[in-house]
Amino acid sequence: MAPPPSNAAVSPFVSLIFLIIYSEVRVRFKDFKAFRYQCATTVIGLAYTVLQTAFTIFLVTTGNRLGGEGIVYIDFYGDKLVSYLLATGAAASFGMTQDLDSILDAIGLGISHFINTTNAAASLCLIGCVFTAVSSIFSSFALPKRASV
Amino acid sequence: MAPPPSNAAVSPFVSLIFLIIYSEVRVRFKDFKAFRYQCATTVIGLAYTVLQTAFTIFLVTTGNRLGGEGIVYIDFYGDKLVSYLLATGAAASFGMTQDLDSILDAIGLGISHFINTTNAAASLCLIGCVFTAVSSIFSSFALPKRASV
Repeated sequence: MAPPPSNAAVSPFVSLIFLIIYSEVRVRFKDFKAFRYQCATTVIGLAYTVLQTAFTIFLVTTGNRLGGEGIVYIDFYGDKLVSYLLATGAAASFGMTQDLDSILDAIGLGISHFINTTNAAASLCLIGCVFTAVSSIFSSFALPKRASV
Repeated sequence: MAPPPSNAAVSPFVSLIFLIIYSEVRVRFKDFKAFRYQCATTVIGLAYTVLQTAFTIFLVTTGNRLGGEGIVYIDFYGDKLVSYLLATGAAASFGMTQDLDSILDAIGLGISHFINTTNAAASLCLIGCVFTAVSSIFSSFALPKRASV
């Protein structure tokens, strides 16, 4: 099921804006692998949401579902993959910032402003992940029954 | 669908052993929030796998499925939740180690041995996540059809 654009598209987008605008504050986000990974996952999440929005617009305007029944599987695997990517992106960023701040403070290189900004971006990425995970649950229920346990 | 004990149970377990055995090597894993989080997710993943193994043993020995049809939903949500937990645990740990090593090396506090051990634990956690995610796909296909798109 396509994630509602009003919710799912906004958080990765704002997350990306945060990372880019504040990229020149003393340290740059591209100096850190974890933040680069988060940025990459955010871009992928955004691209996926735009694609799903396009599919939804096509469905609303023409009344036909692009790709026929196969789209159910694209939704299912797509939602699952993108939600894992966003979850790992946010987790990598949080994992980095939580300890980096205290370590750099201890050696006199405090970058709290940068860390707070990155935490905000990671939080939005996590919200995007939650929306995609909920969408993934709906797309799982939309699957035809294939096996029994 | 219960994850096969031979695969899914082993990697979180070995991951936990790695983290605990090497916890006293100059720095301790509990000094870092990211590693503590990874340890917590690994314990949850292990507990879930043991529970699923118990359900499977009950099914094999009695021929009845514990919990009836409702178990399908427990499998579905359980697999999904645990795979997200393991993914974020591994990502937080990787996000931390990838930059921590180079930062601490730069200030003359190299802890490569500790970092390598933690990376090994995170890799095993990631493998556990992959098995749980595959199990999650199977448990999604096992769901009865509830909605159409």
